[in-house]
Amino acid sequence: MSSVEAPMRVHVQNHPGENPVFHATEEVWRRAADRHPGLARRLDVSIGWTRADLDAAIGDTEILVTWVAMVKETREILASKAPRLRMIFCTSAGIDRVIPFDWLPPGVVLLNNSGVHARKAGEWGTMALLMLANRIPFFATRQRERRWEKVFSPSIRGQVLASIGVGELATPTLRQARALGMRTIGVRHTAAPHPDCDEVVETAALDDVLPRADMLLVACPLTPATSGLVTRARIARMRRGAGIVNMARGAVIDQDALCEALESGHLGGAVTDVAVPEPLPADSRLWTTPNLLVSPHVSVDDPATYTPDSLDLFFLNLGRFLRGEDMPNLVDTTRGY
Amino acid sequence: MSSVEAPMRVHVQNHPGENPVFHATEEVWRRAADRHPGLARRLDVSIGWTRADLDAAIGDTEILVTWVAMVKETREILASKAPRLRMIFCTSAGIDRVIPFDWLPPGVVLLNNSGVHARKAGEWGTMALLMLANRIPFFATRQRERRWEKVFSPSIRGQVLASIGVGELATPTLRQARALGMRTIGVRHTAAPHPDCDEVVETAALDDVLPRADMLLVACPLTPATSGLVTRARIARMRRGAGIVNMARGAVIDQDALCEALESGHLGGAVTDVAVPEPLPADSRLWTTPNLLVSPHVSVDDPATYTPDSLDLFFLNLGRFLRGEDMPNLVDTTRGY
Repeated sequence: MSSVEAPMRVHVQNHPGENPVFHATEEVWRRAADRHPGLARRLDVSIGWTRADLDAAIGDTEILVTWVAMVKETREILASKAPRLRMIFCTSAGIDRVIPFDWLPPGVVLLNNSGVHARKAGEWGTMALLMLANRIPFFATRQRERRWEKVFSPSIRGQVLASIGVGELATPTLRQARALGMRTIGVRHTAAPHPDCDEVVETAALDDVLPRADMLLVACPLTPATSGLVTRARIARMRRGAGIVNMARGAVIDQDALCEALESGHLGGAVTDVAVPEPLPADSRLWTTPNLLVSPHVSVDDPATYTPDSLDLFFLNLGRFLRGEDMPNLVDTTRGY
Repeated sequence: MSSVEAPMRVHVQNHPGENPVFHATEEVWRRAADRHPGLARRLDVSIGWTRADLDAAIGDTEILVTWVAMVKETREILASKAPRLRMIFCTSAGIDRVIPFDWLPPGVVLLNNSGVHARKAGEWGTMALLMLANRIPFFATRQRERRWEKVFSPSIRGQVLASIGVGELATPTLRQARALGMRTIGVRHTAAPHPDCDEVVETAALDDVLPRADMLLVACPLTPATSGLVTRARIARMRRGAGIVNMARGAVIDQDALCEALESGHLGGAVTDVAVPEPLPADSRLWTTPNLLVSPHVSVDDPATYTPDSLDLFFLNLGRFLRGEDMPNLVDTTRGY
């Protein structure tokens, strides 16, 4: 008799209330497992839908696949009641809600699903840049006032885009922006070159970049380093009539300063998919700020592909984990993403 | 002594009230002439800004360059007071306002500036398709109601676009749509293949195409054949949740039927840059129709390039005219564009 390796216990915990796009049914899991048969046959998998399901499974779970909010809700028990836990795979790219990481048990690796959002992010980001170029936030405001006011806009070609963040969300947008003839400047923690940026500068040089930008794309993770990064003073450094797109987190921008810059006409327009707080209450000034378009944090999640693509990323990273290789989705807990 | 050919009398008539994007100053003309020196030195040019300027010039004008509304306003005198007239170059692509062409004096050729709008049209059309895919008209409506309602949208990839018209406005949009992974179906007067369409059908087959389309792009000239083409019955043939973009003329679509299909939820969204009438009065139902975004007929005119590009097209066509060659911008008065 050959020795039989014990299967690895994986628990996949859905969180349908807050994150309807990740929806791992038995059927969806089975199809993902069929795409990764060698690895899947080594796993003993349970799928949970309620908090009770998670509580029942956590005692012997080695690999937990779940939404960041579930990690947040259960982080005390992860340290105390999950002695076999080795990996948490978050079904979100942004994990700002569980910063700082002092709850993460020693020896447990934390991963996100960055990469799942790229196609949608590119489509939405490109759309938002074209909306700024074509003054759609201005016309939507005029529509609220029932006013037909012709204002012509030049082509987006030749305009300058600065992007805070050059990762999963920004990269496909930067690539499209260049294809449209924009000049792209990436702003990130290091000035290392990026294939879709004409220039890259360190975050410390943000103040120098802002006056040159026709548009600012905010597409970075929310971390202690980026929280409040787009201050009132920095918005003031942008040229009159410039525009801002926020597809990151509301807290990266001083939201009141953004509204005031739009009200005064200093900024020509803005499109934001994120806000503080979410959901945005009915009395928020964002709803009525002129030349601002708000969408409800839906820009980068494709419901048709979100779950299978997340599970494919999970299998990719798990294989590398078991072989002792670098995992592309490993969160650097010192940087926060 | 060599014989000297008499210069050709060209009158360039601006119409700044209604068409601010065509603005041919002496300086702008001189720069255009510098780009076409061989031809320009054979011309005797006057530039007009008022109706009196046109009246003073028309008696000996051989080539008139002006905005379509000026043609409409002066068409009686073109027949009676312009005995030397040989060519009218309209500084617009749409010339629906001067249909029928019974006012056109025999032997006078009529041209438009189709081609000037291509870049902006591609940017605006692509933006509008992405706005439908990302449900921006829906979110703008929710913003008016101060409601944060998450609805996730799949990628535009794989969606089906039907385009009524495959000319200057549609072609760059169709090209981008295909680059985004859409399937494109062109609808035009002939089923001849088009490089940016996966299929092309004749207008008579429109009814068969509509149920297959996730989005309908209306980007044709307004002619007797296209006026009212998108009827209530045809909108009803579209699938539930489909979207419409109109960058042609308001009168191509049954506007009340469009509004009702949006109100009932049969259509998921629409973006229109055109309306009936223009300017749209404050009491128009279009302003408040749910899931409809209105812009004020500004989609395809780039103020930075409109005049020089129009004049370059004028010189291109004039050279061909003088050499007896086909002119790309000659209007076919039997088709109306």
